[in-house]
Amino acid sequence: MSSRTQPNVLRRSVSECLGTALLLAAVVGSGIMGESLAQGNVAIALLANTLATGAALVALILTFGPISGAHFNPAVTLADAVEGGIPWREVPYYLVAQLAGAFMGVALAHAMFGHPLLVASQHAREGFPQLLSEFGATFGLLSIIWGCSRSRPSAVPFAVGAYITAAYWFTASTSFANPAVTLARAATDTFAGIRPQDAPGFIVAQLLGAAAATALCHWLMPASRSVSPDVLVPHAHDTREGGA
Amino acid sequence: MSSRTQPNVLRRSVSECLGTALLLAAVVGSGIMGESLAQGNVAIALLANTLATGAALVALILTFGPISGAHFNPAVTLADAVEGGIPWREVPYYLVAQLAGAFMGVALAHAMFGHPLLVASQHAREGFPQLLSEFGATFGLLSIIWGCSRSRPSAVPFAVGAYITAAYWFTASTSFANPAVTLARAATDTFAGIRPQDAPGFIVAQLLGAAAATALCHWLMPASRSVSPDVLVPHAHDTREGGA
Amino acid sequence: MSSRTQPNVLRRSVSECLGTALLLAAVVGSGIMGESLAQGNVAIALLANTLATGAALVALILTFGPISGAHFNPAVTLADAVEGGIPWREVPYYLVAQLAGAFMGVALAHAMFGHPLLVASQHAREGFPQLLSEFGATFGLLSIIWGCSRSRPSAVPFAVGAYITAAYWFTASTSFANPAVTLARAATDTFAGIRPQDAPGFIVAQLLGAAAATALCHWLMPASRSVSPDVLVPHAHDTREGGA
Amino acid sequence: MSSRTQPNVLRRSVSECLGTALLLAAVVGSGIMGESLAQGNVAIALLANTLATGAALVALILTFGPISGAHFNPAVTLADAVEGGIPWREVPYYLVAQLAGAFMGVALAHAMFGHPLLVASQHAREGFPQLLSEFGATFGLLSIIWGCSRSRPSAVPFAVGAYITAAYWFTASTSFANPAVTLARAATDTFAGIRPQDAPGFIVAQLLGAAAATALCHWLMPASRSVSPDVLVPHAHDTREGGA
Repeated sequence: MSSRTQPNVLRRSVSECLGTALLLAAVVGSGIMGESLAQGNVAIALLANTLATGAALVALILTFGPISGAHFNPAVTLADAVEGGIPWREVPYYLVAQLAGAFMGVALAHAMFGHPLLVASQHAREGFPQLLSEFGATFGLLSIIWGCSRSRPSAVPFAVGAYITAAYWFTASTSFANPAVTLARAATDTFAGIRPQDAPGFIVAQLLGAAAATALCHWLMPASRSVSPDVLVPHAHDTREGGA
Repeated sequence: MSSRTQPNVLRRSVSECLGTALLLAAVVGSGIMGESLAQGNVAIALLANTLATGAALVALILTFGPISGAHFNPAVTLADAVEGGIPWREVPYYLVAQLAGAFMGVALAHAMFGHPLLVASQHAREGFPQLLSEFGATFGLLSIIWGCSRSRPSAVPFAVGAYITAAYWFTASTSFANPAVTLARAATDTFAGIRPQDAPGFIVAQLLGAAAATALCHWLMPASRSVSPDVLVPHAHDTREGGA
Repeated sequence: MSSRTQPNVLRRSVSECLGTALLLAAVVGSGIMGESLAQGNVAIALLANTLATGAALVALILTFGPISGAHFNPAVTLADAVEGGIPWREVPYYLVAQLAGAFMGVALAHAMFGHPLLVASQHAREGFPQLLSEFGATFGLLSIIWGCSRSRPSAVPFAVGAYITAAYWFTASTSFANPAVTLARAATDTFAGIRPQDAPGFIVAQLLGAAAATALCHWLMPASRSVSPDVLVPHAHDTREGGA
Repeated sequence: MSSRTQPNVLRRSVSECLGTALLLAAVVGSGIMGESLAQGNVAIALLANTLATGAALVALILTFGPISGAHFNPAVTLADAVEGGIPWREVPYYLVAQLAGAFMGVALAHAMFGHPLLVASQHAREGFPQLLSEFGATFGLLSIIWGCSRSRPSAVPFAVGAYITAAYWFTASTSFANPAVTLARAATDTFAGIRPQDAPGFIVAQLLGAAAATALCHWLMPASRSVSPDVLVPHAHDTREGGA
């Protein structure tokens, strides 16, 4: 029995749902605003989109991390379960919450800009470079998360925000790196969209990248497992049930 | 009796007034500078306005937070009073200080750029998407504040600065999210202005968003209330009178 | 006798000189680079100049703060002496080091870009709005420094970097806020320059702003003086001689 | 014998290799993306390149610092060995890992954007101002690292990221400041490239700058050596073998 009662799975699911919704609202909304103001200069629109997304991640992980771990990302939840973090029986709650939140966030962004709530995207993102980009982007994201959460958990919000800020620019796909985000962005025909038929390839590449990073980090950063239970589950220590 | 004597309500009111004044000077002044230099590219002007506002918030909350809590925002002060933070008898001091500071800041920005001190804005901001944006922006802001102040109070300045940086871009209204800011920005006919007749709708939407976030977070993040008095009032622990 | 031997005044003077030199190299060099690449869009040049200056301040204060306090600014050194921080007998060392470093930094920036080492500026910055801007910019800077150094000294590098980032945009003068910086920028005929005849007005306005902020903060934030010696001299605790 | 078992040299070499690869992918990839979107405005392309590089450094040093020290830079490894940090017998492992990682990162960036894996650059970067820029950039970088790692090791990721963000703009060479980065950027004919024949001059200037900063900081910041073993090796305390 933990000395600190953790939020129950309902509260943590609402936290994942709400955080993912606000994240998608930030990604999609800032894409709409950036494109509408940038007079056709896509670099300026993407700078705005990047700034908003990175800053939103910092704020949202700081806020929701202590409740649910602030995964906002099925690839992170699955990798955490593989490594013995979140119990498998809770994984479905997280995945459903993330997916529902992602679509709610897209709808909220659309409503705030007076668009129809959900629209299939026509933004083509295909080909090997795009898939390699998603593999690399998610590999990097999971490496950052495993590395920081094991040695400096309080820096995770800043590390993840900074990493995605960079990855928007250094990958050809602008670094979706998140299956829930990918599916929801198929429902917006704006700057941040992706055609529904391109989403499955992205998701496979993301899951492979997450798996590769998790396997490598399992070997590369094992110290935390041998030191103490406190260090063993640093990024998840606020997300476990007391008696789990 | 607290072991640490807190600043009295006069000092805290001056802190709120001064911080709000500098915040408004940053919002309005950087809007004037950005628009005048950006050669008509509104995205570049808004990038400058965003950078200045987010950075000012970080600096000002770090500075004035330990004195008065650095609310700078009637919606935050009212929500804090509802949740048992700031005593209701001190609320009027805070609101008056915030309003006076906001108008002083607008006048300061105008004077620094050689404009008349206060001018009614002609910048129309109306319609459902704008009101929904203000509801969403304030809902998100209060969620960030409640979440961080309860679990990681030292991160509040960075979380709020990052959130507003994002919200400038992901809401159609550029996220005023603050009734005092809204009223004072009705007194500037520049980039950051809002027509006086549009202000009441913004303020109602902001107060509803703040109320919704406070109610949700009351349920979502209750842990702090049951742990210890120190955690109970984290964001306000520097603002209470010793014997209050 | 302090339990920790502090750097002697020679080392601290070299630290002030080196830090101020790198600060000026950043301010002037990034102005040259920004203007040369921005194709006449002054907002983009100023965004680059702002980003470089704010980031340099964070890095330099983190680096040189533990040695000399990282004042880099005669207005800060004088205000600190008035408040009983740095001993008056050491003030001349600091001022000379800051001035020498500032001109060295301008010369370094010029040499890195293939310009003559020192050139009188022809950039006019005059009139009441400019002087009010410098008064306000320095008032804000000193308020930030007094507030953070008394309650959260480890946040000073971030607060000062963030404040100057904002103040570049919300003041009409782009916030010099530093007499040594002002004099040295009179020796560059580039983006960041100021005509020599405009410098004295700037410096007077800066000193008045620093004095006003110091007087106000002396009243507004007195708690640190009555709590403990550790809190009494927070921003200077690494800069005092052991036996002083 | 240390109370904490450190990662062995193989794991630390993989950490250096992986971190340097991701750093180069960020530098080169964001240069490609920035140039392709910026419609010929080099300032906007460089803003994107700067943002991505600075943010990547923060994320990567936070992640790999606890494993290998996150040097990613032969100049840093050599300076650390000179100062008694990393043992000389481990230096070759670090240098090989950094070089291999750097070229892997360039190849990854090229593959993500559908370019040939390695291409000799035609981007001329020559002349005294460029060499002085590299001397100054590396002098500043090593000063930042020595200063922060001795007094505030947890701030190193932010200080280095902020410093490089500034140095991209205030040096005429955009601040390579790293021999491994220089060699690998000779293998990309994109925004971030450098002609192979210009690389040796850059590297000599970088090593001279690193040596000058190390000698100066040895004198300027000696306190750490006389206080305690804990402070003696702050930036390397996670990288040493237990029995070394």
